[in-house]
Amino acid sequence: MISDKMQIYIDGSSAIRALFEESKKLAEQLGAENVFDFSLGNPNFPPPAAFGEAVKKYIDAPDQNFVNGYMNNSGYPEVRARVAESLNRRFGTAYAEHNIIMTVGAAGGLNTMLAVLMNAGEEVMTFAPFFGEYFSYATNVDANLVVVPPNPPAFAPNVAAFAPLVTEKTRAVILNSPNNPSGVIYGEDDLRAIADVLREKQRQFGTDIYILCDEPYRELNYTDREVPWMPDYYNNTIVGYSWSKSLSIPGDRIGYLVIPDEVTDSPQIVQGGNIMTRTLGFVNAPALMQLVCAACVDLPVDISGYRKNRNALWHGLTGIGYTCVEPQGAFYLFVKSPLEDDKAFVEAAKPFGLVVVPGSGFGAPGWLRLAYCTSYVTIERSLPQFKALWDSVNK
Amino acid sequence: MISDKMQIYIDGSSAIRALFEESKKLAEQLGAENVFDFSLGNPNFPPPAAFGEAVKKYIDAPDQNFVNGYMNNSGYPEVRARVAESLNRRFGTAYAEHNIIMTVGAAGGLNTMLAVLMNAGEEVMTFAPFFGEYFSYATNVDANLVVVPPNPPAFAPNVAAFAPLVTEKTRAVILNSPNNPSGVIYGEDDLRAIADVLREKQRQFGTDIYILCDEPYRELNYTDREVPWMPDYYNNTIVGYSWSKSLSIPGDRIGYLVIPDEVTDSPQIVQGGNIMTRTLGFVNAPALMQLVCAACVDLPVDISGYRKNRNALWHGLTGIGYTCVEPQGAFYLFVKSPLEDDKAFVEAAKPFGLVVVPGSGFGAPGWLRLAYCTSYVTIERSLPQFKALWDSVNK
Repeated sequence: MISDKMQIYIDGSSAIRALFEESKKLAEQLGAENVFDFSLGNPNFPPPAAFGEAVKKYIDAPDQNFVNGYMNNSGYPEVRARVAESLNRRFGTAYAEHNIIMTVGAAGGLNTMLAVLMNAGEEVMTFAPFFGEYFSYATNVDANLVVVPPNPPAFAPNVAAFAPLVTEKTRAVILNSPNNPSGVIYGEDDLRAIADVLREKQRQFGTDIYILCDEPYRELNYTDREVPWMPDYYNNTIVGYSWSKSLSIPGDRIGYLVIPDEVTDSPQIVQGGNIMTRTLGFVNAPALMQLVCAACVDLPVDISGYRKNRNALWHGLTGIGYTCVEPQGAFYLFVKSPLEDDKAFVEAAKPFGLVVVPGSGFGAPGWLRLAYCTSYVTIERSLPQFKALWDSVNK
Repeated sequence: MISDKMQIYIDGSSAIRALFEESKKLAEQLGAENVFDFSLGNPNFPPPAAFGEAVKKYIDAPDQNFVNGYMNNSGYPEVRARVAESLNRRFGTAYAEHNIIMTVGAAGGLNTMLAVLMNAGEEVMTFAPFFGEYFSYATNVDANLVVVPPNPPAFAPNVAAFAPLVTEKTRAVILNSPNNPSGVIYGEDDLRAIADVLREKQRQFGTDIYILCDEPYRELNYTDREVPWMPDYYNNTIVGYSWSKSLSIPGDRIGYLVIPDEVTDSPQIVQGGNIMTRTLGFVNAPALMQLVCAACVDLPVDISGYRKNRNALWHGLTGIGYTCVEPQGAFYLFVKSPLEDDKAFVEAAKPFGLVVVPGSGFGAPGWLRLAYCTSYVTIERSLPQFKALWDSVNK
């Protein structure tokens, strides 16, 4: 007696999460030390010391009703101001408290904005490869997810294929850079081209088309150039952020939305966001964590551990013969499946204790996602297994 | 360019929250010490010491990736087991880990279940007076909220009016006891009668009708009888709980759902709840708070402060001449508006520094809600103002 819509979700239930469960079963069979799980983006590096210190500082503060209480649905005013000031220092912007909504992670923020913007039957676009959950998010607001085909082997956004897919029904375009699952950082030229297309389509259709940037990986950048700040290129841009990855606290569910004044109907969108934060059942982003993350807002993010993992896995697999996309950001390596059928390869990998995710779930069949937010030892010890697997499928 | 549905929410945006904002403005005009804000259910008693100690214990634990990381969408297995065991001790039940889903507060749990159960156009019922947000929750899943008329002056659930309103389209009935806004605890006889009606209607229509208990106030009980455990009376009962009130941590957003095995299609509902927790954008209930609340699960709840407030406000207002509903639970006093138009009375109260909420927003026009989770001093100092207000409207 569950709802019909629910059945759609169950049928398309996340393959990644299923693998997470399966990996546990594999550990029972092979022994935990012989399972190399590259399936889930669950950081293996601890939060910085300053995070724990901030938690203790706030939990020892005199006014615990303030620290753990309700506030405006959009978040503590002082937290929102502090986030705005930090962004202004980094990006030369002029945001204020009213441009920020604190959210239950980036996922909470993205869902809030989709609920505010989308009418039933309208279209939200994204570029493959993409985070498979976007399908559920679109279904949840009765919208259609339009997927722009992938652009292998470098996986830059496929701007040529994008333009003709934008229609009068297009209300939003999700950009996720650094990208999950490809590890690609979208280049400035591609972002300019996307902005040009959308400006032209807005004129042509007389509509507003919003870009929603999903940026939980912003600081996980291994290149020597900045991740571009999309609002600099396109006015109708809303940015969603999460501290899940930068502070290694994905379970604590804390992030924010930036809704600049330049966005069409910015005040109504902020008001709508405020209401939907409440209505979706969040009420507000977790209180203590808002205060703690604001205290950590300018903390430099140490990516040396991820960089070491990235280099070891990338060079290790390339040395064996695997074809890999250059991992520029996030903590994912996108690898060409040695078997044409990526799902068959994922199955073939299991007896070797290797848990990887098929690219099919990300709109890129024939590829594989490896999350390298594991321990370094896991990567080191997995390489001989990847070699044995390579030999077994190429024999 | 916000969505059409969003406009519905903005138009019906919570009057309580608006008052919260207005109360701040009033403080600027009259001075903060002359404003007596009874509008919002934000506890004024601090969390117990054990809560802060548990936070510090977990934040100092060695494996911070476990403490702040992702887990199964339904929550940490050990936390869910601990919640189940605690319920079994209290209610003589036999729940296990698989019957529990950890949620972002009771609101998150309720929304998750509505998303799992409701098809567009179906009906979810509730008894007036009721928490006004239920309207938004129903709209969010394209369902209709059917409100059973109130039963003044005692405000027991109106079972006689309920029965004929149950239709083939009824999928769920929300029960909220101890009740917000009336402070009434639904009696065993009324609950048995509701269960009888629903069993009969299930037979008649060949449908399943689920009761959703919204129970954030369970422990705030000033009577000498237990709050009945609804699954004892009706098999198709799902219970939602929050630690917001019992631990005074409403901002931290942590609670759980109980989905007993006796519920029709229990495994699918649990699976659906697991998926919707993710899809609504919560991903999982806040990790650190899950562990902390599980550590506090059997902590006795000290309601002496609320009881003192309750007695002072109830007897104080009755002494002046106001008609009050006997406050049995929660921290709300439901008061008959001395003016027929409760909204006009709320306006008349403002110059006296008194901020109260009109009953209209709860489906009970002509009544007022006073949240007494304030300081005792606020109540003491407000009584002369309530007297002056009484005299001014009765002159």
